[in-house]
Amino acid sequence: MDRYEIGLNKWEIDTPALVLDLDALERNLAKMATFLQDKPARVRPHSKTHKCPTIAWKQLEAGAIGITCAKLGEAEVMARAGIRDILIANQIIGPTKIRRLVNLAAYSEIMVAVEDAENARQLSEAATAAGVRLRTIIEVEVGMGRCGVEPGEDALPLAREMATLPGLRFEGIMGYEGHTVMIPDMDKRRAAAEEAMARLIETKVALDQDGLPAGIVSAGGSGTYNITGVYPGVTEIQAGSYATMDARYKGVIPEFENALTVVAQVISARGDRAVIDAGLKTMTPEFGVPELHQPAGWALGGQSEEHSSLKRSDGAALRPGDRVEVIPSHGCTTINLHDAYYVTSNERVVAIWPVAGRGQVR
Amino acid sequence: MDRYEIGLNKWEIDTPALVLDLDALERNLAKMATFLQDKPARVRPHSKTHKCPTIAWKQLEAGAIGITCAKLGEAEVMARAGIRDILIANQIIGPTKIRRLVNLAAYSEIMVAVEDAENARQLSEAATAAGVRLRTIIEVEVGMGRCGVEPGEDALPLAREMATLPGLRFEGIMGYEGHTVMIPDMDKRRAAAEEAMARLIETKVALDQDGLPAGIVSAGGSGTYNITGVYPGVTEIQAGSYATMDARYKGVIPEFENALTVVAQVISARGDRAVIDAGLKTMTPEFGVPELHQPAGWALGGQSEEHSSLKRSDGAALRPGDRVEVIPSHGCTTINLHDAYYVTSNERVVAIWPVAGRGQVR
Repeated sequence: MDRYEIGLNKWEIDTPALVLDLDALERNLAKMATFLQDKPARVRPHSKTHKCPTIAWKQLEAGAIGITCAKLGEAEVMARAGIRDILIANQIIGPTKIRRLVNLAAYSEIMVAVEDAENARQLSEAATAAGVRLRTIIEVEVGMGRCGVEPGEDALPLAREMATLPGLRFEGIMGYEGHTVMIPDMDKRRAAAEEAMARLIETKVALDQDGLPAGIVSAGGSGTYNITGVYPGVTEIQAGSYATMDARYKGVIPEFENALTVVAQVISARGDRAVIDAGLKTMTPEFGVPELHQPAGWALGGQSEEHSSLKRSDGAALRPGDRVEVIPSHGCTTINLHDAYYVTSNERVVAIWPVAGRGQVR
Repeated sequence: MDRYEIGLNKWEIDTPALVLDLDALERNLAKMATFLQDKPARVRPHSKTHKCPTIAWKQLEAGAIGITCAKLGEAEVMARAGIRDILIANQIIGPTKIRRLVNLAAYSEIMVAVEDAENARQLSEAATAAGVRLRTIIEVEVGMGRCGVEPGEDALPLAREMATLPGLRFEGIMGYEGHTVMIPDMDKRRAAAEEAMARLIETKVALDQDGLPAGIVSAGGSGTYNITGVYPGVTEIQAGSYATMDARYKGVIPEFENALTVVAQVISARGDRAVIDAGLKTMTPEFGVPELHQPAGWALGGQSEEHSSLKRSDGAALRPGDRVEVIPSHGCTTINLHDAYYVTSNERVVAIWPVAGRGQVR
């Protein structure tokens, strides 16, 4: 029934609602396109943030060369929406998932990260049996301490084997400098990200010298788009949050706009305190308390499952039914709680876009 | 396609998966029923935890007198599954939501919490126009500092007005001692919960003396089921987490079993460190890091969106593809990330139950 809310003012729709300012979104996409237009690197936006094929298509129209997914299930959603060039920036392990991956290769140009020779052989075998060739890149551990092979020559044995496997196409390498993207000080962020990229490019050089050129060198998040995105040898960046933004990223890359908010309503008010109908099941807390955008003179306090408390500094009194607008502290996980965006232009709901990849953790 | 996993062993299904041990669930429901069988109070389980009509029906079959919901959308899901006696333990504010509530009253015995006279008048007006009578209870603020009228005589003017409104049936009062349910020390928890219940019963006495008897006195969470559930005058308790449990509640009410786990798989392993394919989008973090249940000799470290790290103390080596089992730290919000439970008995998937109320924040 929610589709009958198209055309309403955003202060009139039912609450809580995940609201996306279409104009701010499009300005963010244009800003990234403008930044990259005279650089060698392109953007392969990480769709784990928005999980929405409509937004992914807008990114492709704005010059993105493909998209990135965290999960196979997300990639299936995007491929069903007609998107072809998809990188799953994670390892796909085990026969169940490999069957799904190979199936996906029949109707998309799927590409997957690899860090282990046995996994590579299993991928090749399944692809060969299905008559497809899987695009693969090696994940390099560039300092975050998560997945990936060690940088430099350690990647060579794996790359050599992958190059010989008949079901695989060796496309290049990726590394995610996730430990650097949120460093508040720009100089320190730059130093840390460049150190990570030096590891990635060291690996590329070793591969080049070994006759296994890495055509794709993929890296980067939104917080390092202007560091990694200009680092020599990097061919694409996997920035995600720049599209919608959130309160935490606003402190890191303030040149992008907060396009994402939650509109909630007051359900209880008494003097300097009020309670709204949006809690942990509407806005995630791991990056801190969300930021109250409107009304002025109030701040968000604690969250419980379906409530958050407001405290007044010098704002006007609130009454039950009054609307408030909140900027999530972490967009990626907050969006993943919701089934749809209420897309607004000049405060009017102009569209409702499904968060089609929501919950696709498999 | 996930329904084709029925019949598999839980270690064979795709990952990550929200797994519910049916036998442990049923023992938890039986334990609550046994505890209450010779007590005056009954249980009205809070379905915000499980969001699953199948579990709600099992609770009704085990003696529950009805169910509790946090949100109107949850109540709509439960009513569509044929459940009649539903308490929304929150205020329903504004014309959009009141229309939905009155509509729901036509096919359920819905009951709603009220704390404000203007809201009561609006509810009555909408109910009268629709030809239904809404069941209502007054929410009393018993110390948590969230919603509700002050205890004692402050509830009288609102109750008197509600008793005269033609669209409402005044059923009684509720208070949620949420600030006490997690106090680790049982004596301190008892003292705090009893102090809260004294406020609630003081209100009931004031209403009785005013000729407005509170037939329903509803309170309590899982952490205080054996305090609030035996407090004189309390007629029903709203415990929710006792059914599925989670790692945090296990420290408070260890007599209930952890029926809820997440099965994930290792995607990367190197010596004393490993990475699994389940992060913040699979298991929520606000009550701390989830607890690794299997394998022994490993512990869960940090979580990112789709990964969690494992650290070895003295466990056997792990390899990509190995399964692990994790106990969520907060069941209510973790369940809300998932579309279905993989229901097991003796480790075999015997059913898949939709989390039908997932995302119903409106």
